[in-house]
Amino acid sequence: MTISYSGNSFRLLLRWKGSIWRSVWRELFLFLILFYSIRFSAPHFFNWADPDETKGYRKIFKVMCNEFHEYTKMIPLTFLLGFYVSNVVSRWWRQFECLKWPEDFLSILCLLLPSKESRPARHQIARYLNLTCALAWRDVSTKIRLRFPSLTNIIDAGLLTEKEYEKLQDINEPSPGIRWLTPLHWVQQLIDAEIAAGRGSVNYVSVAMNELKAFRISFRRLYCHDWVCVPLVYTQVAALATYSYFFFCLFGRQDLNHDDFYSLDAFFPLFTVVQFLFFVGWFKVGQDLMRPFGLDDDDFELSYILDRNIVTSFTIVDSLQDDDPPKFEEDVFW
Amino acid sequence: MTISYSGNSFRLLLRWKGSIWRSVWRELFLFLILFYSIRFSAPHFFNWADPDETKGYRKIFKVMCNEFHEYTKMIPLTFLLGFYVSNVVSRWWRQFECLKWPEDFLSILCLLLPSKESRPARHQIARYLNLTCALAWRDVSTKIRLRFPSLTNIIDAGLLTEKEYEKLQDINEPSPGIRWLTPLHWVQQLIDAEIAAGRGSVNYVSVAMNELKAFRISFRRLYCHDWVCVPLVYTQVAALATYSYFFFCLFGRQDLNHDDFYSLDAFFPLFTVVQFLFFVGWFKVGQDLMRPFGLDDDDFELSYILDRNIVTSFTIVDSLQDDDPPKFEEDVFW
Amino acid sequence: MTISYSGNSFRLLLRWKGSIWRSVWRELFLFLILFYSIRFSAPHFFNWADPDETKGYRKIFKVMCNEFHEYTKMIPLTFLLGFYVSNVVSRWWRQFECLKWPEDFLSILCLLLPSKESRPARHQIARYLNLTCALAWRDVSTKIRLRFPSLTNIIDAGLLTEKEYEKLQDINEPSPGIRWLTPLHWVQQLIDAEIAAGRGSVNYVSVAMNELKAFRISFRRLYCHDWVCVPLVYTQVAALATYSYFFFCLFGRQDLNHDDFYSLDAFFPLFTVVQFLFFVGWFKVGQDLMRPFGLDDDDFELSYILDRNIVTSFTIVDSLQDDDPPKFEEDVFW
Amino acid sequence: MTISYSGNSFRLLLRWKGSIWRSVWRELFLFLILFYSIRFSAPHFFNWADPDETKGYRKIFKVMCNEFHEYTKMIPLTFLLGFYVSNVVSRWWRQFECLKWPEDFLSILCLLLPSKESRPARHQIARYLNLTCALAWRDVSTKIRLRFPSLTNIIDAGLLTEKEYEKLQDINEPSPGIRWLTPLHWVQQLIDAEIAAGRGSVNYVSVAMNELKAFRISFRRLYCHDWVCVPLVYTQVAALATYSYFFFCLFGRQDLNHDDFYSLDAFFPLFTVVQFLFFVGWFKVGQDLMRPFGLDDDDFELSYILDRNIVTSFTIVDSLQDDDPPKFEEDVFW
Amino acid sequence: MTISYSGNSFRLLLRWKGSIWRSVWRELFLFLILFYSIRFSAPHFFNWADPDETKGYRKIFKVMCNEFHEYTKMIPLTFLLGFYVSNVVSRWWRQFECLKWPEDFLSILCLLLPSKESRPARHQIARYLNLTCALAWRDVSTKIRLRFPSLTNIIDAGLLTEKEYEKLQDINEPSPGIRWLTPLHWVQQLIDAEIAAGRGSVNYVSVAMNELKAFRISFRRLYCHDWVCVPLVYTQVAALATYSYFFFCLFGRQDLNHDDFYSLDAFFPLFTVVQFLFFVGWFKVGQDLMRPFGLDDDDFELSYILDRNIVTSFTIVDSLQDDDPPKFEEDVFW
Repeated sequence: MTISYSGNSFRLLLRWKGSIWRSVWRELFLFLILFYSIRFSAPHFFNWADPDETKGYRKIFKVMCNEFHEYTKMIPLTFLLGFYVSNVVSRWWRQFECLKWPEDFLSILCLLLPSKESRPARHQIARYLNLTCALAWRDVSTKIRLRFPSLTNIIDAGLLTEKEYEKLQDINEPSPGIRWLTPLHWVQQLIDAEIAAGRGSVNYVSVAMNELKAFRISFRRLYCHDWVCVPLVYTQVAALATYSYFFFCLFGRQDLNHDDFYSLDAFFPLFTVVQFLFFVGWFKVGQDLMRPFGLDDDDFELSYILDRNIVTSFTIVDSLQDDDPPKFEEDVFW
Repeated sequence: MTISYSGNSFRLLLRWKGSIWRSVWRELFLFLILFYSIRFSAPHFFNWADPDETKGYRKIFKVMCNEFHEYTKMIPLTFLLGFYVSNVVSRWWRQFECLKWPEDFLSILCLLLPSKESRPARHQIARYLNLTCALAWRDVSTKIRLRFPSLTNIIDAGLLTEKEYEKLQDINEPSPGIRWLTPLHWVQQLIDAEIAAGRGSVNYVSVAMNELKAFRISFRRLYCHDWVCVPLVYTQVAALATYSYFFFCLFGRQDLNHDDFYSLDAFFPLFTVVQFLFFVGWFKVGQDLMRPFGLDDDDFELSYILDRNIVTSFTIVDSLQDDDPPKFEEDVFW
Repeated sequence: MTISYSGNSFRLLLRWKGSIWRSVWRELFLFLILFYSIRFSAPHFFNWADPDETKGYRKIFKVMCNEFHEYTKMIPLTFLLGFYVSNVVSRWWRQFECLKWPEDFLSILCLLLPSKESRPARHQIARYLNLTCALAWRDVSTKIRLRFPSLTNIIDAGLLTEKEYEKLQDINEPSPGIRWLTPLHWVQQLIDAEIAAGRGSVNYVSVAMNELKAFRISFRRLYCHDWVCVPLVYTQVAALATYSYFFFCLFGRQDLNHDDFYSLDAFFPLFTVVQFLFFVGWFKVGQDLMRPFGLDDDDFELSYILDRNIVTSFTIVDSLQDDDPPKFEEDVFW
Repeated sequence: MTISYSGNSFRLLLRWKGSIWRSVWRELFLFLILFYSIRFSAPHFFNWADPDETKGYRKIFKVMCNEFHEYTKMIPLTFLLGFYVSNVVSRWWRQFECLKWPEDFLSILCLLLPSKESRPARHQIARYLNLTCALAWRDVSTKIRLRFPSLTNIIDAGLLTEKEYEKLQDINEPSPGIRWLTPLHWVQQLIDAEIAAGRGSVNYVSVAMNELKAFRISFRRLYCHDWVCVPLVYTQVAALATYSYFFFCLFGRQDLNHDDFYSLDAFFPLFTVVQFLFFVGWFKVGQDLMRPFGLDDDDFELSYILDRNIVTSFTIVDSLQDDDPPKFEEDVFW
Repeated sequence: MTISYSGNSFRLLLRWKGSIWRSVWRELFLFLILFYSIRFSAPHFFNWADPDETKGYRKIFKVMCNEFHEYTKMIPLTFLLGFYVSNVVSRWWRQFECLKWPEDFLSILCLLLPSKESRPARHQIARYLNLTCALAWRDVSTKIRLRFPSLTNIIDAGLLTEKEYEKLQDINEPSPGIRWLTPLHWVQQLIDAEIAAGRGSVNYVSVAMNELKAFRISFRRLYCHDWVCVPLVYTQVAALATYSYFFFCLFGRQDLNHDDFYSLDAFFPLFTVVQFLFFVGWFKVGQDLMRPFGLDDDDFELSYILDRNIVTSFTIVDSLQDDDPPKFEEDVFW
C-alpha cells in the first residue's frame, strides 16, 4: 500500500514498512557477508599460498585494494542517480495521474440521464466503467491480476454477467487487445439509446462525451506506461555504476594493516554501510517506482481503489440521484 | 500563515516567523549540547578509564574522529538535497494549484440562473460549494480539522442545516468517502431543477458543467496528494544522509589537540553550525513543504481562504447579481 | 523595463541597465571596504595590542584566516544557487504567463455582439476589462500602485466613472477583495442583457464565456503568486550560504604574509571579486525575479502593458468592428 | 522493439537485447585494441627509435601520459551528460506522446454516425485514419519506410485503393507535403455528407471535430520533432567531451612502469572499462533516444502499432457498433 | 536552417554547418593568438625589463600564473552552464511550439463554410492567415524582415492588396501594434457574413473559433518571447564565468619552465583547447538558442515555413475542398 507518513523526520527513519531498511537489507546483508569473507579468508589464503611472502601475493592484494579504493572516489554515483531517480519519480507521478475516477463521468451522467426511468441504464453504465477498470488494471497490475486471475473471477465479483462475458470473448478473439474498450463502447450505445428514447438532456452531451473520452484515454496511457519503460540502457547505466561502486568497495574498503588496530573500519565498515544504505536505497527508489502497480509496499493500492470506485459509483447513480436535493432554508448568510 | 516577504535579502535573514532559525533551532541546540558533551566529557572519561594512556583509548578516539571527519567530506549531501527538495517544492506548488475558488463556478452560475426568482437556488448552491470545501479540507488540513472537529461545528458555522446533516449521514454510512461529493451532486440537481422550471439559459450549461467538474476534480487531487506522499524511501534517503552527516560531524569536527589553542573550532564549531543551518534548513524546507496544509508557519492558510471564499461567494450570487450593471456613459475613449 | 538584448555576448557584459554590475556594485563596494579595512587595520591592531608578539594574537588570526579559507572551499554554493535560481526562474515565467490580454476576449466579443447597436455595450465591456487590469494590478505591482495611488486616479484616467466608483465602494465595503471581480460581473450582465435584447449570436456564447473565465482566473493566479512566495526558508538557506561564504572570504582571502610580496592577492583580491560578481549576481537573479512586478530594471513593464491594452481594446471594439472587411479581390494565388 | 523489463535489477545487467553491452561493445572493443596497441608497441618503438635513451622519447611519453591522466580528472563529463541526457529523455517521451490512436476518434464517430446505413462511411473513415498513419509514419520512421517503400505497397496492404492513389498523386504534385493531410480532409467531407444526409447526430459534432483536430495536430508534431532535432552544437559538445575523455584515457591510463608488476591496471584497465561502459553507455542513451523511430532495439515499434491500430479500428466501427449492447440484468449491486 | 542530423555520432563531430567548430572558431583563434603572444613575448619582456633578474618580475609572473591556474579549478563553470543552458533550451522549444500552422484552422473552416459559393471567402481567409504570419514574423525574425523590408514587399508577394494595405495603415496609425491583429479580425467578420448569408454550418462555429483564438494567441506568445528574454543578469553571470575562466587560463595554463621541455603543454595547450571547445561551445548553445528566429545556421527557417504554409493553405481551401471525397469501395478489411 502507498505509505502515508508525516511529522518528525527522525522517527521516520525507524519505520519498517516501505522503508529503506526493508528494500536494502538483503543486499546489505549479502554485501557484509562478502566483505567479511574477504577480510577473514584473505590472510589464510596468503598464509597457505604464499607462506614465506616470496610470491608477493599479499603485496599485490594490497595494491589492488588501494587502487580499488581510488576508483570508488572517481565514480560519480550521486550525480548519475540524481538524474536517473528524478526522471523515474516524475514518471511515477505521471502514472498515478493516469488513474481515472468513475465519479467524474458518473456525476455528469446523472445530469444527462436524470430520470428515474433511466436508473437501470445508469446502473449498467456504472458497472461497465468499473468493469473496464478491472479489465485494464488486470493487465498492468500484479495485484489486480492476483485478484482476478481469469475473467470468471470478475463474473464472481458481480462486475460482469455471463452473457456479457460471452460477448467479450466473441469480440476479443479476432482482435485481441480490444476487450477493455468494449464496455466503454456499450456505455456509448446505452447513452445513445436513452437519448433516442427521449430520456436524455442533450445539453450535457458534449461534456459527458469529453469526460468519457478522458476516461478511455487514461487507460491507454496506463498501457503505454506499462509498455514503454525507462530505456533499458539508462537503467543499466545506473545499475552498473551502483554495483561496480560497491564491488570496488568490497576490496577498497578493506583495511589489512592489522597492526594498526585503531582503525574503526578494521572492525566494521561503518561509513561504507552508510553509503550503501543511501546509494543502494536511492537506486531502489528508482527500481520500485518504475513499476508502481506491483506488490511492493509502496505501490499504488489499485485493489483498494477498485473497491472504493465500485461503492462510490453505485452510490452516485443509485442513491444520490434517486434522492431529491434538500429544500431551500434560510441560512445565516441569507 | 504563508509568509509573504520581499525586498532586501539581508534583512530577510533576521526574520523569525517561518524562518530557518525557527525550524532549525531545536535541532541545532540538541546538536550543540551533544557536541559539547563529547568535547568536555571525553578527556575526563579518558583520565578515568585509561589514566596512564596504556590502553590507547585516547589514540583510538582521535583516529576515529579523523576518520569521521574524512567521511563528512564524502557524503554528497548538497546534491541529494538539491534533487530531493526541488522535487518536493514542485509537489508543494502543485498542491497549492489544487485549491479551487468558488467564484469561478459562481460567476458562470449567475449567467446560467440569472433571474431574481433563482436567487434562493443560487444562494443554496453557493453554500454547498463552501460546504464541500469545509468537508474536504477537514480531511486534509489540520487547521480546518481543528476549526471543525465534528460536522456539528459546520452546522454552527451556518454552512450546513440539520436536515442536510441527516441526509449526509444517511449517504455516508454505507459508502464512506462520498460525503464531500454529495453537496456537489445537490448542486447539479438544483441546477437541473431550475432549468426544468425554465429559469436557466441553456447556452451556458456546458461551460458551467465543465467548471463544476473542475471544481470536483480539484478536491480529489487534494485527496490524492494527501494520500500519496513523496515515496518514503526517498525521504529516508535524504534524512539518513543528513543525520549521518551530522552524526559524523559530532566527532569529526572535535578538535582534541588542546595544545593548539589557536584553533577557533576548539571554542565554537562555527563552520559546522553554519553548515548545520543550511543543510538541516534545506532538508526542513523539504519536510515542511511535504504537508502544506498543517499548522506550520509557512503552511497554506486554508482557514483564511475558507472565510474569504464564503464572503466572496455570497456577495457574488446575492448582491452582485441582484444589482444592475452601470448604465452606459460616454467616457474619454468614446 | 524588461531588458531586451541580443547579439554578441561580450558586449552584453558592458551593459549597465538591468545588469549584474548594477545589482551587485553596492554589495561589492561594501565587501571591498570591509576587506581592506581588515587588511590594513589588522597589523596596526596587532602592533598596538600585542607589540612583542607574546600574546600570539597574530598567530591566532592567521590560523583563523586559514580555517576560514578552508571553509569557503566546502560551501556548495554553486549547487544550492543552481537549484534555487532555476526554481525562481520558472516561477517568474509562470507569473509572466499569468498576464492576460483583453484582445483575446474582445475579438470574440465582436463576434458575439457584432451589430452597430451593440457598440456602446462593447465599448463599456472593453473599458471594464481594462478597469479590472488596473484594479488588480494595483494590488500586485508597485508601478501600477504608484500610477494609481487611489481609485480616484483611475477615474481621472477615464477607466472608471463616478457612478461606477460608488457602486464599487458599496460592494467592496462588506466584502473586501471582491472589487476587481465586480467589473467582470458587469461584463457578464451586459452581455446577458444584449443577448436578451436579441442582439447577440448565441453560437459564440460558450467560447466567449470560456475566455472570460480564463481572464478572471489569470488575475487570481497573479494574486496567488503575489501571496505565496518561494518558501521563506528556501530563500534564507540560499541567502545564508551566500552571505556566510563571503563572510568567510573576508578573512580567508586575506594574505597576511607581507614578506611574500609576489602574491597578487596581496594587492587586489581579483579572484574573490570575480566570484563575488557571479555568486552574488546569481543570487540577485533569484531576488529580482521573485517579485517581477516591482520597480527594478528587469521587471515587467505593467504600466506600458496597461496603456497598450487600453489602446488595443478600444481600437478592436470600435474602429475594427465598425469597419467592414475588405471585399474579395482575385489575388495571384486564385 | 521497445524493451519491456522489470524485477531484479541485477539480472537486468545480464540482458543483451537493447542493453548497454549491445550499444557499447563495438566502441569498447575498438578502445581496447587501441589501448593495447599503444601498450605493446610503445616499448618496441622506443627500443627501435631511441635504443640508448639519449633522445628522451620514453620520458616525454611518460610525461604526456601523466598529463593526460590529469586531464581526465578535469573533464566534467558526468554533469554534462546528465543535463544532455535528461534533455533528450524528455524529448523522447514527448515524441512518444505524439503518437495518436485512432480509437479515440472512432469511438466518437460511432456516436456521430451510429446507424447501420453509415457503416460504409465509418469503415472508409477508419481506413483513412490508418492510411494517414501509414503515410505520415513513412516519413519519420525507417521501419515503416522499409515496410512501405512506395505508395503501391500501401495499396497492397489494402489501406489505399487505386483511385484514391491517383487522387493523392494529383494533389501532392503541386503542393508536396500535403499528402498525409488529404485522407483527413476526406474524413471531414464524408462526415459532412453523412450529416447532410440526415444520418448524423449533431450533438457530437464538436467533440468529434476536436478529436479529429487533435489527431491531425499529433502528426504535425511528429514531423516537427523529426525536423527539429536537439541543436547540433549541444550534441557535439557532449560527443566532444566523451570522445576527448577517452582519447586522453588511451594514454593517461597506461601504466608503463613495468617494474612495478603489482599494478592491476598493467594487465587490464578494469576501471577505465567500467567508466567506458557507463559514460559511453550514458551518451548512447542520448544518441538512441534522439531518433526513437529508427531500427534500434529500443525504438518504438511503429509497425506493430500500425497493425494493432488497423485491427482495432475496423473492429470498433464494424463489429462493435453493429452489435447491440447487452440487455440490463440485475446484478449483485442492484 | 535547422540542422537535421542523425546516425553515427563520431561523424557528427566532423560537420561544419551549424557546428561547434563554426560557432567557436573565431573565439578560439583569438584565444590562441593571445595565448601565444603571452608565451613568446613574456621572456623577451623579462629580458628587456629585468635582465639580471633583480627585480623579480619573472618570479611575480610565475606566482601569478600559478594563482590563476588555481582559480580556474575553483570556477564552477560546468554547473552554472548546465543550469543556464537547460533553461535556455526549454525556452527555445517553447518558442518553436509557438509557431502555429494555418491548416489547423483552415481544415475546420472547410467544414464551417463547405459550399462552392463560399470559396472566395475561404480563399480570402486563407490569405489573411498567411498575411498575419508575414506581418507578425517580420517583427520577430530577422529573416522574414529581410524578405519583407516594408509592407509593399508583402503586396508584391501577393499576400496583401493595395486596398487592404491602406486599411491596415489607417488602423495602425492611431494604435501601433494592432496591425497583425487586423487580418484576423477580418477573418472573423468574413465568417460571420457567410453565416449570416446562410452558407455556414453553425455546428462547427465553436470549434473554429477556438482554433482561431489559438492562432491569435500563438502570435502574441511569439511577441512575448521576443520581448521578454532570459533575464540579462542571468546571461551576464554565465558570460562572466566563462570569460573570466578563460582569461585566467590565458596565464594559468602557460608553462614557463622552458628547461622542462617534455611538457606537451609547452608546445600546444591541448587540454585548454578542448576545454575551450566544449565550455565556450556549450555557452554558445545558450547564446544561439536565445534568439531562434535569427540568421544563424541553427535557427528556425521561418521563411521556408511561410512558403510551405502558403502553398498548403490554398491547396486545402481550393483544391481539396472543391474536390469530392473518393466513393466507397469494398476493401480487404470489409
